[in-house]
Amino acid sequence: MTRSLTIGAAQLGPIARGEGREAVVERLLALLRQAAARDCKLVVFPELALTTFFPRYFMEDQAEVDTWFEAEMPNNSTQVLFDEARRLGIGFYLGYAELCVENGQTRHFNTAILVDEAGNLVGKYRKVHLPGHAENEPERPFQHLEKRYFEPGNLGFPVFQAFDGIVGMCICNDRRWPETYRVMGMQGVELIMLGYNTPRYFAPAPDLNRMADFHNHLVLQAGAYQNGSWVVAVAKAGEEEGCDLIGESCIVAPTGEIVTQCQTLGDELIVASCDLDLCTMLHTKRWDFAGNREPEHYGLITGSKGVVSPFDQS
Amino acid sequence: MTRSLTIGAAQLGPIARGEGREAVVERLLALLRQAAARDCKLVVFPELALTTFFPRYFMEDQAEVDTWFEAEMPNNSTQVLFDEARRLGIGFYLGYAELCVENGQTRHFNTAILVDEAGNLVGKYRKVHLPGHAENEPERPFQHLEKRYFEPGNLGFPVFQAFDGIVGMCICNDRRWPETYRVMGMQGVELIMLGYNTPRYFAPAPDLNRMADFHNHLVLQAGAYQNGSWVVAVAKAGEEEGCDLIGESCIVAPTGEIVTQCQTLGDELIVASCDLDLCTMLHTKRWDFAGNREPEHYGLITGSKGVVSPFDQS
Repeated sequence: MTRSLTIGAAQLGPIARGEGREAVVERLLALLRQAAARDCKLVVFPELALTTFFPRYFMEDQAEVDTWFEAEMPNNSTQVLFDEARRLGIGFYLGYAELCVENGQTRHFNTAILVDEAGNLVGKYRKVHLPGHAENEPERPFQHLEKRYFEPGNLGFPVFQAFDGIVGMCICNDRRWPETYRVMGMQGVELIMLGYNTPRYFAPAPDLNRMADFHNHLVLQAGAYQNGSWVVAVAKAGEEEGCDLIGESCIVAPTGEIVTQCQTLGDELIVASCDLDLCTMLHTKRWDFAGNREPEHYGLITGSKGVVSPFDQS
Repeated sequence: MTRSLTIGAAQLGPIARGEGREAVVERLLALLRQAAARDCKLVVFPELALTTFFPRYFMEDQAEVDTWFEAEMPNNSTQVLFDEARRLGIGFYLGYAELCVENGQTRHFNTAILVDEAGNLVGKYRKVHLPGHAENEPERPFQHLEKRYFEPGNLGFPVFQAFDGIVGMCICNDRRWPETYRVMGMQGVELIMLGYNTPRYFAPAPDLNRMADFHNHLVLQAGAYQNGSWVVAVAKAGEEEGCDLIGESCIVAPTGEIVTQCQTLGDELIVASCDLDLCTMLHTKRWDFAGNREPEHYGLITGSKGVVSPFDQS
């Protein structure tokens, strides 16, 4: 018996700044019900899926910042999503801004959770690679203040046994770093889920804007192939409060092939039947890490955060 | 003044088992002269560019194996290539099977060297990731005995100051491992050169054969983009002694875009003008490793050769 898992990628169109969480959850519920009608066992929602992408706004008042965060999950606004998913027998990945207290300290993370078909919370991930900047940069047409409002995730890249496979999560910018996939690949991952909010306009290097969609797919496909894992990548897309967000949400096979991708920049569900045993084939016959990796030569990857030029002394 | 370097990728068609090194060097010289006519300052030749891909043959007699190796470089067969390159003011990357004695021990490596425009040997690389197998497997239509005839390279992934940039090398299967590019990326690499001999038929998993060209380009493009480096990848291509080798040699920009690629499976030169300053832009404005990498979460990449399942105890 093959391990076939039917997965839905539930892209969202823009969320207005004034759109309340309840209205957004109604949109999530509509996608969830579509997914049930198409036999999905798992639905992947975007990063920060409950609000507009608030890191585009500079806010000095921490109380205002905190209004964008969730202090509990589920909470009054989202409980209905959890209830309906359990009723339908569908698990889900959901991204949101997490406010919590750990060891007496208030903390802010860009977080995703995984809920299984029975409604159990089976995994949590906190975004490790925060993009953007920490200070207001008024010359930008919009801000990208993730480095201001969030701390880097403190959970690493854990994998979980769920949906009859080994699954992991990451978020948005994490997908551009090959280390993200590899750390999960080193734990035998078979399915990586991620949400993203990716402005088409990249202020530090606008020359790259025309390649935003290409780069999105390139890193997803390479990460999938090089680690023999399914990758499900889901955007919040479209023109959100004057900021263009890329779409092209997709499901990528462990061969690196895109098997389905969104055709719009709005709320849209795409579905694929994902054979997790294909991962086993790639892990054993294509890659065989134990037989082929040579970590004695990889020391710089963990030995330094930044570039170590061998020529600086000259 | 931008650092613009005109590079030629000199793909080779098949080399017959009985074709002598002198005949092959004549072909290399023809490509070198074409490159000079097109203003190249650097030409990249394939992996094991002087002979047929001999790891496809099982040989028990080490003396026979050693006939495929070069005990000196340059030697009688290749001196003319070095001389002509210096005369033309062109540097080159050349792959060959290296037989040497280190600390009194005879050693065999799959090696590439880099020679600068003035004829100086500026770098050597020995293939770290050896593919294939070590024992005869008669059920295969042809062998891939790199793990038998070579030792893994013992030089790591060094980079060199040459051609007004920071350059590195790898060979064939190395390109499938993101660690290869990243270790050089961590040293600020701006140009990665590699040669390859890649059979279209992959005996362990023939289902992947139809994707051989796609996978070749995918890993090259991701490695280039994720490290902001030019990548020049050069095949020995075509039907060589009954074994189909993929072609599609290409020059990839630091944006991940293929700027030129071969259109044949034979001897063919492609040329691109490569702006090394584009790497500086990507290194500083897109990636900024020091500001964005999070190596405290990458430990498994160097901490283990093979997969470490968190679930094996269960």
